[in-house]
Amino acid sequence: MEKEDLKEFVVYGRQPVIEALRSEYHVHKILLARETDKKTIQYLLNQIEKKDVPVQYLKKAELQRHCGPVHHQGVVAYIEAFKYWSETEILKKIGLAGPSFILILDQIQDPQNLGAIFRSAEIAGVDAVIIPDKGSAAITAIVAKTSAGAIFHCPVCRPGDLAVTLQQLKQAGLRLYALVAHQQKTIFESDLTHPLALVIGSEGRGVRKNIERLCDDTLSIPGIGKIDSLNASVSTAIVLFEVLRQRRYT
Amino acid sequence: MEKEDLKEFVVYGRQPVIEALRSEYHVHKILLARETDKKTIQYLLNQIEKKDVPVQYLKKAELQRHCGPVHHQGVVAYIEAFKYWSETEILKKIGLAGPSFILILDQIQDPQNLGAIFRSAEIAGVDAVIIPDKGSAAITAIVAKTSAGAIFHCPVCRPGDLAVTLQQLKQAGLRLYALVAHQQKTIFESDLTHPLALVIGSEGRGVRKNIERLCDDTLSIPGIGKIDSLNASVSTAIVLFEVLRQRRYT
Repeated sequence: MEKEDLKEFVVYGRQPVIEALRSEYHVHKILLARETDKKTIQYLLNQIEKKDVPVQYLKKAELQRHCGPVHHQGVVAYIEAFKYWSETEILKKIGLAGPSFILILDQIQDPQNLGAIFRSAEIAGVDAVIIPDKGSAAITAIVAKTSAGAIFHCPVCRPGDLAVTLQQLKQAGLRLYALVAHQQKTIFESDLTHPLALVIGSEGRGVRKNIERLCDDTLSIPGIGKIDSLNASVSTAIVLFEVLRQRRYT
Repeated sequence: MEKEDLKEFVVYGRQPVIEALRSEYHVHKILLARETDKKTIQYLLNQIEKKDVPVQYLKKAELQRHCGPVHHQGVVAYIEAFKYWSETEILKKIGLAGPSFILILDQIQDPQNLGAIFRSAEIAGVDAVIIPDKGSAAITAIVAKTSAGAIFHCPVCRPGDLAVTLQQLKQAGLRLYALVAHQQKTIFESDLTHPLALVIGSEGRGVRKNIERLCDDTLSIPGIGKIDSLNASVSTAIVLFEVLRQRRYT
């Protein structure tokens, strides 16, 4: 894995810190609020002990000096910098454990949506998440929090040129799909059991046209209501679990 | 429909106001930011004209006096008070348009999750949403916004005693399911084509035990990742669209 930069990654919240401890990331130190009843964080304390991470107890209000004015739940961790995978590493992984499933986020800009998507993607067993270097929300503490710590378990690649990466995935035998609105062909009528990469567009604009053109096909989620479009993280999750269903429950 | 109270409902944001105008709700007046380029809100202006709603133009900063410090996108509307349906009205609706599908939210407390769930529920064609009077987030402008205006198209019932309502739904022929974590039986292995009501629990605690006991069966969403649980609005959407799939695409 490449190191993105040398800075530490400051993460807050119980679940994200627990997941960082359960992952391969090196957790440098953990700050806990003195006021917290230890019984309520027993699992966290066990994980800290198991990994032998230094702990410092501070007043709850002092934690904000480390993570800002957020809902930190009395837990802040200093972790080694977030590690992005290279394209080469992702390509090596393809096909190793059954038909591959790669998720590509074309410029998702809302960090809460990005975190929510990571959470669903990790649970649905996606092999890797690809986010272009430009125009996407960065992986920050908010993303770590809304992902419920999923980002520490999920390979993430951040290519400079998404078009090139799409071509590489195609050459590796993946079928490329773009999720778009109002298409005839729905996810429920498409065979999603073969190796594939799914491209999700940004909240406002959808998949960029030049990216959609590189895809083999488009997919859409049917709706029968009066309003028009699903939230980006919700629509992504619906497709992720339809892929899981087709591959494991049919 | 019963009137909940006599207060007006103040709603902000382009999409929620457009949906209020497209619904049966009476929109009393609309405030628009003077600075907005009319071309960018042409569809909204057409809807306002169609419904003959009085419009007032204010400076963008002045709109906040009406809706608070929110991302109002230059649009605020005063609408008649939100109308809740009675249990009787909901029961009368059952079976009129194919197998019923009723969504019950057992104390969802985050308004953003509540709004996101309404948005998915309306698109998936749910017949009604039931939220207990106590312990749930109220239907506010934030819910209207995150629902993308779906709340104006979706029948909502707020019973005082959820247990009584569940019994009534059972007597009306609906099968009651509780969505819970880590159950053997997944949504993908259950027949969801018959008339049913689905109970979703709150973010932290899940479905309350006394409510789960009243249900005929439990369902869960399978996961193959390392982290544990999906976001409440995401998991709800996955089940909603699995019901839609089973009913329309098999």
